[in-house]
Amino acid sequence: MQIIPGKILAQINTPEDLRRRNRSELLQICDELRQYIIDDVSVYGGHFGASLGVVELSVALHYVFNTPNDQLIWDVGHQAYGHKILTGRRDNFHTNRLYGGISGFPKRKESKYDAFGVGHSSTSISAALGMSVASNYKGETDRQHIAVIGDGSMTAGMAFEAMNHAGDIPNNMIIILNDNCMAIDPNVGALKEYLTDITTSHTYNRVKDEVWNLLGKMSKFGKSAQDIVSKIENGLKATLLKQSNLFESLNLRYFGPIDGHDVEYLVTVLNDLKDIPGPKILHCITTKGKGYALAEKDQTLWHAPGKFDKITGEIKKKYYSTPQPPKYQDVFGHTIVELAEQNAKIMGVTPAMPSGCSLNIMMKAMPNRAFDVGIAEQHAVTFSAGMATQGLTVFCNIYSTFMQRAYDQVIHDVAIQELPVIFCLDRAGFAGADGPTHHGAYDIAFMRCIPNMIVFAPMNEKELRDIMFTASQDEFKELKQCITIRYPRGEGVMPVWKTAFEKIEIGKGRKIKDGENVAILTLGHIGNYAVQSCEILEKEGINPAHYDMRFVKPLDEAMLHEIFQNYDKIITVEDGCIQGGFGSAVAEFMLDNNYSAQIKRLGIPDRVVEHGEQIELHKECGFDPEGIAEAVRSILGTQKNTYKSEIVKVTLN
Amino acid sequence: MQIIPGKILAQINTPEDLRRRNRSELLQICDELRQYIIDDVSVYGGHFGASLGVVELSVALHYVFNTPNDQLIWDVGHQAYGHKILTGRRDNFHTNRLYGGISGFPKRKESKYDAFGVGHSSTSISAALGMSVASNYKGETDRQHIAVIGDGSMTAGMAFEAMNHAGDIPNNMIIILNDNCMAIDPNVGALKEYLTDITTSHTYNRVKDEVWNLLGKMSKFGKSAQDIVSKIENGLKATLLKQSNLFESLNLRYFGPIDGHDVEYLVTVLNDLKDIPGPKILHCITTKGKGYALAEKDQTLWHAPGKFDKITGEIKKKYYSTPQPPKYQDVFGHTIVELAEQNAKIMGVTPAMPSGCSLNIMMKAMPNRAFDVGIAEQHAVTFSAGMATQGLTVFCNIYSTFMQRAYDQVIHDVAIQELPVIFCLDRAGFAGADGPTHHGAYDIAFMRCIPNMIVFAPMNEKELRDIMFTASQDEFKELKQCITIRYPRGEGVMPVWKTAFEKIEIGKGRKIKDGENVAILTLGHIGNYAVQSCEILEKEGINPAHYDMRFVKPLDEAMLHEIFQNYDKIITVEDGCIQGGFGSAVAEFMLDNNYSAQIKRLGIPDRVVEHGEQIELHKECGFDPEGIAEAVRSILGTQKNTYKSEIVKVTLN
Repeated sequence: MQIIPGKILAQINTPEDLRRRNRSELLQICDELRQYIIDDVSVYGGHFGASLGVVELSVALHYVFNTPNDQLIWDVGHQAYGHKILTGRRDNFHTNRLYGGISGFPKRKESKYDAFGVGHSSTSISAALGMSVASNYKGETDRQHIAVIGDGSMTAGMAFEAMNHAGDIPNNMIIILNDNCMAIDPNVGALKEYLTDITTSHTYNRVKDEVWNLLGKMSKFGKSAQDIVSKIENGLKATLLKQSNLFESLNLRYFGPIDGHDVEYLVTVLNDLKDIPGPKILHCITTKGKGYALAEKDQTLWHAPGKFDKITGEIKKKYYSTPQPPKYQDVFGHTIVELAEQNAKIMGVTPAMPSGCSLNIMMKAMPNRAFDVGIAEQHAVTFSAGMATQGLTVFCNIYSTFMQRAYDQVIHDVAIQELPVIFCLDRAGFAGADGPTHHGAYDIAFMRCIPNMIVFAPMNEKELRDIMFTASQDEFKELKQCITIRYPRGEGVMPVWKTAFEKIEIGKGRKIKDGENVAILTLGHIGNYAVQSCEILEKEGINPAHYDMRFVKPLDEAMLHEIFQNYDKIITVEDGCIQGGFGSAVAEFMLDNNYSAQIKRLGIPDRVVEHGEQIELHKECGFDPEGIAEAVRSILGTQKNTYKSEIVKVTLN
Repeated sequence: MQIIPGKILAQINTPEDLRRRNRSELLQICDELRQYIIDDVSVYGGHFGASLGVVELSVALHYVFNTPNDQLIWDVGHQAYGHKILTGRRDNFHTNRLYGGISGFPKRKESKYDAFGVGHSSTSISAALGMSVASNYKGETDRQHIAVIGDGSMTAGMAFEAMNHAGDIPNNMIIILNDNCMAIDPNVGALKEYLTDITTSHTYNRVKDEVWNLLGKMSKFGKSAQDIVSKIENGLKATLLKQSNLFESLNLRYFGPIDGHDVEYLVTVLNDLKDIPGPKILHCITTKGKGYALAEKDQTLWHAPGKFDKITGEIKKKYYSTPQPPKYQDVFGHTIVELAEQNAKIMGVTPAMPSGCSLNIMMKAMPNRAFDVGIAEQHAVTFSAGMATQGLTVFCNIYSTFMQRAYDQVIHDVAIQELPVIFCLDRAGFAGADGPTHHGAYDIAFMRCIPNMIVFAPMNEKELRDIMFTASQDEFKELKQCITIRYPRGEGVMPVWKTAFEKIEIGKGRKIKDGENVAILTLGHIGNYAVQSCEILEKEGINPAHYDMRFVKPLDEAMLHEIFQNYDKIITVEDGCIQGGFGSAVAEFMLDNNYSAQIKRLGIPDRVVEHGEQIELHKECGFDPEGIAEAVRSILGTQKNTYKSEIVKVTLN
């Protein structure tokens, strides 16, 4: 379906086209841009609320600044749809987030207007400062550098580190604080309260104005009073202006708050800011989902609603006649509550992903035992470690890709100290449409090299529930180890999933089936593909064994001895990077135990894999069901037969 | 040499003993504690300035709080010598940082008074908050939680993340901001300026007091003026008190600044703070090195000066009759300047380690091209990435262990974007006396799994210089890859090291010597041990081949084909974790190319290795020269002969 742009928008192919328009047309351009986003996302899906919230900012920034010479960096990037549509990608925008299509985030390779690739939050100030320092060093005096960052992203330590540096450098840089009180879920923490404080008239601004007015009134008491007033005013300016504001404390000149939906005023202010030297911050108040009533009302739901009917607002769901497997996320969310009801020691922690990882279920049921700490992965891990020192059983749920932000804390604060924190790594493997910035590709490699770390991946819902049960038992603490439980985004395989809890022996794999000549060793959910591969191969008279190893660490050595004693052709399958991953661990076992076998490792190859549906990416990387089957044929030296695997209905999505 | 404690200190074996002393004795106790630290460190070495700076704090905290029930967390931990001496470790203190001795940092296993193990900075607030939340949840109303954190540590984003959370929780927690304007090097950034501002009377406090006084004077203008004054005061309280301070902005009650060396006043203030509910921060001004004049004067030099004559202040250096090899750190520092003089694109970045990594040489020579960004590894990497987008050639020097803090930024901001940032990982391998928190044990595994990442380790000074030269050439940028260059703490092997630059072909190893039956494959400086091993073995008639592979990634495949075609017994040696490391990469190559050989991997085992001299740890882990020789004998099935390797003079220290 072709999305038809509005009259003026249709003529804007580049920001240069935009800058040629009359200022009086900006309001209409914003309307048309907003409509285009609604039209497109309702049909094709994608992120929604964030981009609607910055329509006016997107237009004003490209109108005022000379992009791409002036460099614009969109923090996180899922707010950049308007920016993309204005910078030459309008007519490709329907391919957004599709396999082979444009990326849902800014990406340097995609456009010269995307000054910095993003996906994770809170990188924009550091990047903009680096560019600004470089421009300054090169004598490019005519360039501006603008970071657009949300209040949610501001809670991440990295943004603070960057402001601490930026405030120390006289470079001409602009930070736009896009304050909508939201991350994906409502923003949390003291900073949010502070921003609300200085935004609402009840405190900061009203008080500042009132004091100023009251001091004015003192003049009527004559010259000597005026002298005192003048001294007071000077003193207050030194404190109120220089130090009365968190950002001014860091030597960033603070402007605002202003209405981020008033495009004409934005243009005026941004034009003024261009001429003010040094690092500065403009505080804009916006509404996530602006202009689409339902999205303004339930901002978390409409962060990325999927396809919907733009008239009725009905979000399109797939309907099934039979019960479907749940998402692993929901299994986690319900299971932690179920366990916590029995076990008073259990606590839950998430850095800003309560709805994404489903900890929101526990936050609602047990608000004093489940914590959203904001976009703050580092703190989330060490905060969990602190609780664990007091004998509590802490589930710290962090997306695999975001765990990269807390790697040191896992090593330094948890593993070295032998604290039994339970790390749940959500969205391990391919993230799907979010693409390379979000793929959980490296966790097996970067976790298994840490001492005192157990690494587990469930093949189905029951396995996830059972390992959560196992790790929450007091006897687990006696191991003095922490554990990583990694599972993918999306559905499992068990329509009836709420099984009774059974303990899993640490380091024990499962034999799925015996076989001949070749053994397939899988890790986690991706093992379900191997089940399908075996079915495919069976029709060709090939009968591989299949082992669900479950643990990368400790490996099931007894099972591996059995395997290496019986098979000299082995395929390992993981939805993680093959460098240093699960297959590599199996290879290490083989060498350490003087076995000799042919091992073919399937997994994520050593390159940046782009976005697409998970199954598309699995296929691309050769470990979809047919890919695994083909690897078996290849290692057996069997001619590939004419059987062609269709993309079978998959349980990942 | 036995260190003799002062009269009272000799009687203090636990904080309970301290708390039984009269308050009037605290001054003397501080004197005796300070003297004990000076006496001990001058003889045995270790960290110095930081602990001298918190003598009074250490005494006051243990005097006021009921440790260990009240939980005291020392950020970083090298400031905790006084704490250790007061908590039962006085008579063992001479074993500090020695192999088998007590740790130079707080460590949970070592003492119940060490509430949280530390080493890296900025973890204390997160940990204390976690403990506080746990205590609160468990109904332990009588416990206090105190984090002592330096102004340097405050610049790390993690501390900000924790404060953002702490300010949102009404728990009774105390943060002691130990402000001495220093990290190891002078602290940098806007926060430091701010803290100086609110400390010096010229701005914040004087102005606040003056405004308060001036308003008082307005009363003389009568009742109606008084009414206005009263309104102004109320308004100002809302802004000045609630919001005029960065910490108050985050909803932490701010107290101070106070003199952190006035032990009696500290006791008074801490007693008061105990009774004030909610999260609060006490700003203490201290002097690093307090009480030892030379240390107060040159605080960076006296951070950890080594052994010294406590009377003359002469720092004991080893004297050699012949020129000695330089430290790798100095090679880096001088070489980057040498390259930068020829190449205007080169920039340098360090997060708070300018003297440690020797970037201070460039900072002095080219202040506009070398940046200390503070303790802010995440920002350091993305700031470097920002500069790299502008065509600059950025050397980002981060200790291997601290790079764990910026892992996501390496993946997300550099590697995925194909930016040619040059990462220099200092102190890779064992850190030595700093112990497990500081060992650079995991970098090979966690870096080689990242796409677009080259991983290199130099075997000597020339190799380091040549790879720096290679990576700084414009043609390197065409590879669209970033590079990790890892090298150890301490001396190289080339007394004459300033060799002419030669280009290194990316992915090319070096054959050190041909051999028979067995090949030793080494990575980096540790290869010098293998040279010694070969000399040992030669006397026994064993002649291994030795290859310095140089690159973990990309591996020298041509060389590996040669090796696997000629040898079926292979030893790999690396000073990194063997899980997923260099040996694992060699194993992957073997499997991918259908070779079959016996491979013995030497490296850091899968456990936490404690502190000690580097050579002691290498020996413990079996990859000192004799350990490598023994692995060769073992793989050859040769009886170990009676030759006993002494600890040969080693080039690492």
